[in-house]
Amino acid sequence: MLSKSLIRLITSLQHKKFRRQHSLFCVEGIKSILEFVDSAYVVDTILATPSAAAKLNKIPENIKLVSVNEEELKKVSFLTNPQGALALVKIPSSNDISITDLRGKHSLVLDDVQDPGNLGTIVRTAEWFGFQQVIASLDTVDVYNPKVVQATMGSLARMQVIYTDIETLIQDQAIPSYGALLEGESIYETDFQLEGLIILGNEGNGIRPILLSHITQAVTIPAFGKAESLNVAVAATVFCSEIARRKQTL
Amino acid sequence: MLSKSLIRLITSLQHKKFRRQHSLFCVEGIKSILEFVDSAYVVDTILATPSAAAKLNKIPENIKLVSVNEEELKKVSFLTNPQGALALVKIPSSNDISITDLRGKHSLVLDDVQDPGNLGTIVRTAEWFGFQQVIASLDTVDVYNPKVVQATMGSLARMQVIYTDIETLIQDQAIPSYGALLEGESIYETDFQLEGLIILGNEGNGIRPILLSHITQAVTIPAFGKAESLNVAVAATVFCSEIARRKQTL
Repeated sequence: MLSKSLIRLITSLQHKKFRRQHSLFCVEGIKSILEFVDSAYVVDTILATPSAAAKLNKIPENIKLVSVNEEELKKVSFLTNPQGALALVKIPSSNDISITDLRGKHSLVLDDVQDPGNLGTIVRTAEWFGFQQVIASLDTVDVYNPKVVQATMGSLARMQVIYTDIETLIQDQAIPSYGALLEGESIYETDFQLEGLIILGNEGNGIRPILLSHITQAVTIPAFGKAESLNVAVAATVFCSEIARRKQTL
Repeated sequence: MLSKSLIRLITSLQHKKFRRQHSLFCVEGIKSILEFVDSAYVVDTILATPSAAAKLNKIPENIKLVSVNEEELKKVSFLTNPQGALALVKIPSSNDISITDLRGKHSLVLDDVQDPGNLGTIVRTAEWFGFQQVIASLDTVDVYNPKVVQATMGSLARMQVIYTDIETLIQDQAIPSYGALLEGESIYETDFQLEGLIILGNEGNGIRPILLSHITQAVTIPAFGKAESLNVAVAATVFCSEIARRKQTL
């Protein structure tokens, strides 16, 4: 049975302001929830329909389980087709998330990416290709936005997304930075060396001009047709794949 | 001024049934609309706010222009933030769309891709990388779905998407077919030769078992992390990029 106050709490979590206030975000679907249960995240409460609860029987006792029916779940779910279970997960304290040593590897850096689906897809793709974290500008869409969480398909349970001032980051790091731009050296011919920041810009405006002067190398994905731009998650994919390919064949 | 019958017609076009019945689909945004005006498509009517109409002054006289205000546009737009203009474009007769000779090149073949955003992104990405058409199974989401059209960002004006029975297609073509699968030869080591069908499966279920026996080579995108799968548009991107890279360095 779902209390009115719990309904109010969960629906408020679609807004960043209330996610920060309560330090909670939502994860939907049994598979994703189990990945968060098995992660460093703290799962606070799980709402589950009887059939979903049967698949969640091995979760630790300290997690509150609330039994709901399909209709109740529909009231609080952010999905058009709710997936049987919704978890409230604690947002880690910013003290627990910090940029690890960026030397000796490549890191994705997102400059004001706005679309939740794009951010989620980038996190999922980055994990696939062995990246350990994604760095995002302070104005990048919030990673705990329900649509981002959904698009990560569970990868968020294992991948850190760190928000920071990108200009300072590039200046402070003594490693090369590669900007994904429409004009630049072909990605297929760029020497990515053994470490670097891969900077990807906003969907409409690209990388902010203020960052361009700090970029070591402009890199482009050669266009073979008449399309004027690539989706930012697609561009991120090409960089991830190309860097992974080089590492594999080193 | 927007008539009730026009409102009814446009809103009905979110459903495939009515798109087929009226042989019309919607394109939103000035930039995309101008790409359709400049294409082989027939643009029937454009609804535009006064500020959008000013940017559409060079369109041919045979296209009906309906002046609307922001509120009227909001009533019929499929977007949360309407972009000033919405065009009704004729769906080409299926006689005008046919599979071109697939020999001597690589073609993307989608097996029951369901997500409109994925299909749209694949069309846009395929155009970027120089593919001329996308072939889709009969149960793949309709390319004239407003969300697909939006996600192609104008690429649909130039790219053909052809729906056909994939099993027959693979059997009829005397060129190799490469299936994107979780187990297979690494994409970075696969010899894609000079021609072939790149087969990508449904978001949840992958490629249908019935097609697997017809596939020449199972190809996988090596996983470096713990993510269990890749988004299908991301997988398509890796194939497009890798094939384009090989062609460039031939």
